Amino acid sequence: MKRIAILGSTGSIGTQALEIIKEFPDKFQAEILIANSNVDLLIKQAIEFQPNIIVVVDESKYQFVKKSIEKYPIKVFCGNDSISQVVAFDTVDIVLTATVGFSGLLPTIKAIEANKIIALANKETLVVAGELIYEKLKNSNSVILPVDSEHSAIFQCLVGEKYESIEKLILTASGGPFRGKNYDFLEDVTPEQALNHPNWKMGNKVTIDSASLMNKGLEVIEAFWLFEMPVEKIDVLIHPQSVIHSMVEFKDGSIKAQMGVPTMKIPIQYAFDFPCRSFSDRNKLSFSKYNNLTFEEPDIKIFRNLQIAYNCLKRGGNSACIMNAANEIAVDAFLKKKIKFTDISNLIELALEKIEYIEHPNLQNYLETDNITRIKTLEFIK
Amino acid sequence: MKRIAILGSTGSIGTQALEIIKEFPDKFQAEILIANSNVDLLIKQAIEFQPNIIVVVDESKYQFVKKSIEKYPIKVFCGNDSISQVVAFDTVDIVLTATVGFSGLLPTIKAIEANKIIALANKETLVVAGELIYEKLKNSNSVILPVDSEHSAIFQCLVGEKYESIEKLILTASGGPFRGKNYDFLEDVTPEQALNHPNWKMGNKVTIDSASLMNKGLEVIEAFWLFEMPVEKIDVLIHPQSVIHSMVEFKDGSIKAQMGVPTMKIPIQYAFDFPCRSFSDRNKLSFSKYNNLTFEEPDIKIFRNLQIAYNCLKRGGNSACIMNAANEIAVDAFLKKKIKFTDISNLIELALEKIEYIEHPNLQNYLETDNITRIKTLEFIK
Repeated sequence: MKRIAILGSTGSIGTQALEIIKEFPDKFQAEILIANSNVDLLIKQAIEFQPNIIVVVDESKYQFVKKSIEKYPIKVFCGNDSISQVVAFDTVDIVLTATVGFSGLLPTIKAIEANKIIALANKETLVVAGELIYEKLKNSNSVILPVDSEHSAIFQCLVGEKYESIEKLILTASGGPFRGKNYDFLEDVTPEQALNHPNWKMGNKVTIDSASLMNKGLEVIEAFWLFEMPVEKIDVLIHPQSVIHSMVEFKDGSIKAQMGVPTMKIPIQYAFDFPCRSFSDRNKLSFSKYNNLTFEEPDIKIFRNLQIAYNCLKRGGNSACIMNAANEIAVDAFLKKKIKFTDISNLIELALEKIEYIEHPNLQNYLETDNITRIKTLEFIK
Repeated sequence: MKRIAILGSTGSIGTQALEIIKEFPDKFQAEILIANSNVDLLIKQAIEFQPNIIVVVDESKYQFVKKSIEKYPIKVFCGNDSISQVVAFDTVDIVLTATVGFSGLLPTIKAIEANKIIALANKETLVVAGELIYEKLKNSNSVILPVDSEHSAIFQCLVGEKYESIEKLILTASGGPFRGKNYDFLEDVTPEQALNHPNWKMGNKVTIDSASLMNKGLEVIEAFWLFEMPVEKIDVLIHPQSVIHSMVEFKDGSIKAQMGVPTMKIPIQYAFDFPCRSFSDRNKLSFSKYNNLTFEEPDIKIFRNLQIAYNCLKRGGNSACIMNAANEIAVDAFLKKKIKFTDISNLIELALEKIEYIEHPNLQNYLETDNITRIKTLEFIK
């Protein structure tokens, strides 16, 4: 039995992870559920899955949550500091980091220090502080199993292969709802249009990042750290059907691809179940339905975020941290209709230009960079 | 240094294997070259690669070959019996069985008994006598590494995975030059049309089998023995571009595919180099060129050979041996314009009906079945 802590149990990944746990009650158990502020769902989940512990980040809702489940033997914690404590508890085998954005960083570090298996769905952790995480992993018995479908695909293709056999990683991208559109079109798109992803049902932030190709940029950086690949060996290929989730090209010219229906349940289950693959009939890919798979090059002149991400990776230091924070603020502003879609790239570039570059940042530097970038980007928007 | 015996060095697979050996002189060495009757090429290869031994099967050409290379320190053998002896020599690490048809069986058995690594390109070995080979392998330290591109693809997809994780194998098929054609069309096709394969350059026998889907039928049977998969877990999917060489679906719904340009050099190199993948830039797949991959179901009503092969696998015993021998004779007759393309299936069905079924054949039974089927099928043609 693997006991799982879910950081972000009420989000898109978190709820799907609970469905996996429900499907395999003999293999997985929800040990800790952690949510930000969606307490109605958290309470419902707690009653259904009977975890040992739940954490509500929003401290103002602690009393309400505690009262709602007082008749169950479930401990209730609150606040951000609690997260970093509970993920290190002895009763936890796997920590699923399914929060969105920068907030996943500190708990992930704590879980690594406690030698947990990390099922990593929070890509910003590696994007913002990949170097730090990389160092932490080297001094720990922790391992990271990727949950992002692309990185899970690469991980699956690499099982049984040697590191020195890898020629390059090929991250596939659907291209989002605006694939093939020109700059003028992008200037006028609405949040509703951007949220209408052709293949994937995801949270709002990820869906906007997907439309702007920032999501793929974040994934390139994530792959860089996760698979220790030089930047010139990480390619992005547009594959609108999202059936091939990513590929690895090997030195002998052979390419391995991982495919499946576009659901996060396969990579979540794989991270929990690794190295096994338990039977599930919910996820069958039909080649009668997906009988035509196409590929094209990404247009990095129109979708500048992807190029910005590559540049940040090459520049190193706190660049990706600045990029990520500026993007989070910009996406939020776009969703609130305060800026245009094309302003997202403009704001990130402005932040990269204005915020101090630090070549070898420590954790404190990352926290400060993140903080100052958010403040400055909000100022730029005004 | 891996020392390689090539059974069939002058054929399509054999010559490509020598190109691999030439490309990696520090890794591979041609130890023994074996050819049937193409002595001009065999002599040329012997002079270039300086193997320790060459074997010419056609005994009438022995003196000519011996004289031609008398100034080199190369031993010359002749006749079929020699093959079975030399593949067991201590100086051999890998035996590449790259002959076509039934003749690969006996030397393969000898190589297994001598605990060699078998790079198996002769699919008829497993088709005809899979049960026997399977038993021999169990009592030996030999391993079979598949060279057929489809089976190599499956083998590559299975590296690092557990047997119990496999849901099914998906063999891809180009569909050959007559994909989408109806029965009336097939009745009138010429050998020249059938030899015009859209993607692969192969020997004549394999190319005709590819056009009739018998090749895929042989591969289904090969996969059955090689991967110990029940027949209902082996699917065939038409994929005209021949970029995906085959796939494995796992129990969790994840599918892994192996891709590459349509060249046999990748699977040959993989079998020689396994578990490594040395760098070669000759085989790069371009997704700009192959930007559209399609899939369709095989039409087993028109291309009956595939259904016949499935039926033989289910029936077991010496059925596949009968099918294979009848097919070899029928293909030869078609190439000589003695029968129609559609007669190939008719002749195989007739042979299966007329030749005695043996439920648990031994080696002698296989040899007799093969022999009598050839004689009878030639009679049917007359």
